[in-house]
Amino acid sequence: MEFSAVLQARTSCRAYTADPVAPEVVTAIIEAGCAAPSPFNQQPWSFIVVTDPQRIAAVAAHSAAVRDQLAKDSGQGWVAKYDPAFVGQAPVLIAVAANPKKIGLGAFLGDTDAHVKAASACIQNMLLAVADRGLGSLWFTMYDRAEMAAMLGVAEGLELVGLLPVGVPAAPGKQPPRKPVADLTTYL
Amino acid sequence: MEFSAVLQARTSCRAYTADPVAPEVVTAIIEAGCAAPSPFNQQPWSFIVVTDPQRIAAVAAHSAAVRDQLAKDSGQGWVAKYDPAFVGQAPVLIAVAANPKKIGLGAFLGDTDAHVKAASACIQNMLLAVADRGLGSLWFTMYDRAEMAAMLGVAEGLELVGLLPVGVPAAPGKQPPRKPVADLTTYL
Repeated sequence: MEFSAVLQARTSCRAYTADPVAPEVVTAIIEAGCAAPSPFNQQPWSFIVVTDPQRIAAVAAHSAAVRDQLAKDSGQGWVAKYDPAFVGQAPVLIAVAANPKKIGLGAFLGDTDAHVKAASACIQNMLLAVADRGLGSLWFTMYDRAEMAAMLGVAEGLELVGLLPVGVPAAPGKQPPRKPVADLTTYL
Repeated sequence: MEFSAVLQARTSCRAYTADPVAPEVVTAIIEAGCAAPSPFNQQPWSFIVVTDPQRIAAVAAHSAAVRDQLAKDSGQGWVAKYDPAFVGQAPVLIAVAANPKKIGLGAFLGDTDAHVKAASACIQNMLLAVADRGLGSLWFTMYDRAEMAAMLGVAEGLELVGLLPVGVPAAPGKQPPRKPVADLTTYL
């Protein structure tokens, strides 16, 4: 697809069909992520691909429990109605972790989250690559970071930056409105 | 351009011609950034576009001073040879800031850097949009974050996440090598 079409096609998908995603497609999505820039090209990212249905179900169950706690903590009514069960429908989850030791000269520049920035650029590439193939995903965050890292076996010392369900969308995506550039920009 | 070609065309550009970049192109690049996802669609990003030659020269001079300090602090010989003067050649700099109050439910999830993640996804979209137009950029970080924020007038409470020179590349880009996906991925 044309790049500008991919930008518009990338929406946060919260409903998946039961169709599988081929392993080579998962690899291509991760390869797109790896094309992101990073300090010193240290490529601080690593990936955990989950296709085991029991593990995926456990992730969804954890998210539902976190949702219940969040509904209490945040006091926001809509949270109680947000159903993360869609995560359990996706045939694949891809977790992205980052190594805080791979930040180039960041430690000398107060840029100690450079690994998170690089992994976020990597995730954005992955989300776009998903959209480019007509698949759906979203940057899912409704989990306890420490508990999810333990559930997925994220190696000691690495930080979980995002969890991406990937699958065939069960419904067309819709772009939420964006603020106008003029309202967000200062010119010097 | 096709998305996959854009991914490959996006390289870190460290040499720019004197050719200008039209204001509407700058706006289109920022619009591409704004198509990124963010928690609750809060769009925590804002932008400072610098085209004033004196300000651009001041940024480059600051970076050269930081380079000198980094060469001492890091003890790495190559740093002394790294010349950030290319930043001063670019006709436009775009700074991206993020609002740490716009993190959705992140505060309840230990995800207090969700604004940095969203702004990083925004920056990656911008870098790809630059490449899509045959222009060059890079995620420049050789500056003192507090000093650069002051130089650019980043509003109190916002965090500077990246600085992107944008211009016409003076030389073809080259992709650095990437680690194989298989070496980075665990399958569950």
